[in-house]
Amino acid sequence: MSTALRIAVAGLGTVGAGTLRLLNENAEVIAARAGRALQVTAVCARDRSRDRGVDLSGCQWFDDPVAMAAEAEADVVVELIGGSEGAAKQMVEAALAAGRSVVTANKALLAHHGTALARQAEAAGCTIGYEAAVAGGIPIIKGLREGLAGNNVSRVYGILNGTCNYILTQMSAGGGAPGNPVERQSFEAVLSEAQRLGYAEADPSFDVDGVDTAHKLAILTALAFGCEVDFDAVFVEGIRNVSALDVSYAEELGYCIKLLGVAQQVNGAVEQRVHPCMVRIGQPIASVDGVFNAVVADGDFVDTTMYEGRGAGAGPTASAVVADLIDIARGTVLPVFGIAADRLSRLPTLPMERHSCAYYLRLLVLDKPGVIAEVSAVLRDADISMESMLQRGRAQGEGEAVPVIIMTHETSEAAMRAALDRIAGLEATLEPPQLIRIVDF
Amino acid sequence: MSTALRIAVAGLGTVGAGTLRLLNENAEVIAARAGRALQVTAVCARDRSRDRGVDLSGCQWFDDPVAMAAEAEADVVVELIGGSEGAAKQMVEAALAAGRSVVTANKALLAHHGTALARQAEAAGCTIGYEAAVAGGIPIIKGLREGLAGNNVSRVYGILNGTCNYILTQMSAGGGAPGNPVERQSFEAVLSEAQRLGYAEADPSFDVDGVDTAHKLAILTALAFGCEVDFDAVFVEGIRNVSALDVSYAEELGYCIKLLGVAQQVNGAVEQRVHPCMVRIGQPIASVDGVFNAVVADGDFVDTTMYEGRGAGAGPTASAVVADLIDIARGTVLPVFGIAADRLSRLPTLPMERHSCAYYLRLLVLDKPGVIAEVSAVLRDADISMESMLQRGRAQGEGEAVPVIIMTHETSEAAMRAALDRIAGLEATLEPPQLIRIVDF
Repeated sequence: MSTALRIAVAGLGTVGAGTLRLLNENAEVIAARAGRALQVTAVCARDRSRDRGVDLSGCQWFDDPVAMAAEAEADVVVELIGGSEGAAKQMVEAALAAGRSVVTANKALLAHHGTALARQAEAAGCTIGYEAAVAGGIPIIKGLREGLAGNNVSRVYGILNGTCNYILTQMSAGGGAPGNPVERQSFEAVLSEAQRLGYAEADPSFDVDGVDTAHKLAILTALAFGCEVDFDAVFVEGIRNVSALDVSYAEELGYCIKLLGVAQQVNGAVEQRVHPCMVRIGQPIASVDGVFNAVVADGDFVDTTMYEGRGAGAGPTASAVVADLIDIARGTVLPVFGIAADRLSRLPTLPMERHSCAYYLRLLVLDKPGVIAEVSAVLRDADISMESMLQRGRAQGEGEAVPVIIMTHETSEAAMRAALDRIAGLEATLEPPQLIRIVDF
Repeated sequence: MSTALRIAVAGLGTVGAGTLRLLNENAEVIAARAGRALQVTAVCARDRSRDRGVDLSGCQWFDDPVAMAAEAEADVVVELIGGSEGAAKQMVEAALAAGRSVVTANKALLAHHGTALARQAEAAGCTIGYEAAVAGGIPIIKGLREGLAGNNVSRVYGILNGTCNYILTQMSAGGGAPGNPVERQSFEAVLSEAQRLGYAEADPSFDVDGVDTAHKLAILTALAFGCEVDFDAVFVEGIRNVSALDVSYAEELGYCIKLLGVAQQVNGAVEQRVHPCMVRIGQPIASVDGVFNAVVADGDFVDTTMYEGRGAGAGPTASAVVADLIDIARGTVLPVFGIAADRLSRLPTLPMERHSCAYYLRLLVLDKPGVIAEVSAVLRDADISMESMLQRGRAQGEGEAVPVIIMTHETSEAAMRAALDRIAGLEATLEPPQLIRIVDF
């Protein structure tokens, strides 16, 4: 057995402490699989005194992660600080400049700087492991980069944020009878509960506004299609506007609502989008509930594959970090995005206006004669064909508010947005219309 | 870019032809990911004249796969002949003896000779890629060997045979109302249809009797637990006895029936078993239908992960073969079962008699007073506690046959078998009792 792989770890929060614990508790099986021991030789964290459940007395301590990345007695540097700029970026660059491979869980960093960092790593003969950056413990990076390497991948999509999936699952739980949506919890109520349970941050915007999902999607897109990482090209819409009413109607119509990140190649262009989706119940991804994540990848030879597991938490994320470390210990140094960074293509972006799908619309309108005719006329004028319309439970009296649910046939996003602008402007429309895209996988 | 990886392929049936087609059609993306071209330089098949849709004029042709394995101008040898003995085994041994890594889809070979072949490969500095041997295109070998490498895996199970899953799915399709099982198709009827559609072989016994699943399970067990491959330790029961009645009652009780391969560590011993299982509807694996396969792996840090996709067919299997070839082209040569073959442990086997679970029983008994009391007494004497009993639709008259369904609480296999022997011997029992194990994952 050769000498130990020496590891420097920056950031000893939940994931950092979990990684140290995993390296310690499973040292024997890890050494057997890596062919050598994995030894943490240096750490960097704000608080030296905190008990992290692991003996760190033999480690070099650093206050400055950038100094550690360049100077520690280490073969590989683990970045668990987070954030797309600042210390995280500087320490990764410093590690690569010193010829050291990097393992990171930092999706924001790779979403914003992935291509440049991959170039730097490959020029230095190093790699960047980021299995932990997407879908936690699910080995989807390895699956796409190596497992499906023989395929042209046409589409990759998934549930990439456990917080949102937990919230949407809770909103649909309990349920009650169709047409009796009052029992369901609102977005705000479930979010508060999720915060109390530690499933959502005090400031939940990165999660619930879809940014975290978009970071992960941008990484998956580059890996799946062999193109440069292009976070700015991702269309992003979060789940704040999904109401208990939407969840009830979705279920009644045979759907559930999931926040998906979807990347697909359409006639040589790439579409990347994050938004709430109506997914038909019975689809494998529809049954991925709670904090679980799942990724679906379609390859031209392998057809559809799906990968499911825990997308966050100390254990699953540490599992992914250590998998990358074992690869490096074994000497497996692959191009960061599967093909050499200087050969990643720049595929054109398909703008969201040109996206095409069927839509769920929820309007709140005055219950008076002629309103439905007005709405229908707007859709007809925009060449949008309705599949169904649902208006149940009349208002108490004429002139009060009633919800109207419309499912359309496939149409373009541009046509739909124009029609919604007109509907929003009708005198009888009482609040901005809700729109949820229906996916048909 | 370095020189091409030269590949010799033996066996040009469905999978072999698919592999040649994939290497040809996706040559560009494969070369980009492998860092070099993958070039088929030699082939071996019975019929030289058959059109396989790929130009083979530049290849060396061999009639003898063993000669090809030893003598072809090739860096790696692909074995797609099949079978645990004979030409397949000899050619793999010959390739390894010549210092050439091997890629194979042959689960029977590895189930019977995996440990010895792994030792031979590693002594020669080679590896054996067998992603295609288990679950077709799903990259589960890579997932377990590398993706979950940091974990102690406590259990791995899955739907590993598409033919059986297709048959069981078709038997449960259509369905009809509870208590009205007459609409469902029998095992025999669905099998005939599957044979007509090409989903089942003319001689289906390898599939429907569970042997194919057991081959794959034995491989997964070695990989997951780091132990020697022990096919003989697998308990195997196929799906021939699953009736339309069982499928109906299962659904009524909230279950579906799946043929699973299950391997788990129980107090330092290994349990490997293949049999029809009652899986609660709502479990992720319950919704894996038709020819799809799925594997679930539980690791101590990653928790539960699931992998789903097509388990057979030219495209998915070729995808797996080529993934292994790309690994080898990149220089990734890992121990065959994740840890060095001479360090694989020999874990004791937990015999099936000591397995413990809840059971579904279906009896056919004479409809006369006292029969239920007799059956209940047998179970009570064996210390088996009933959870529920279902007897619906009385016979036309006293003394005719009625089915009785019993769900038990958890008990040992030994107790259950003893009780079933006694029940089978009762005068009122008209056919051997049916037993299906209920899994609780």
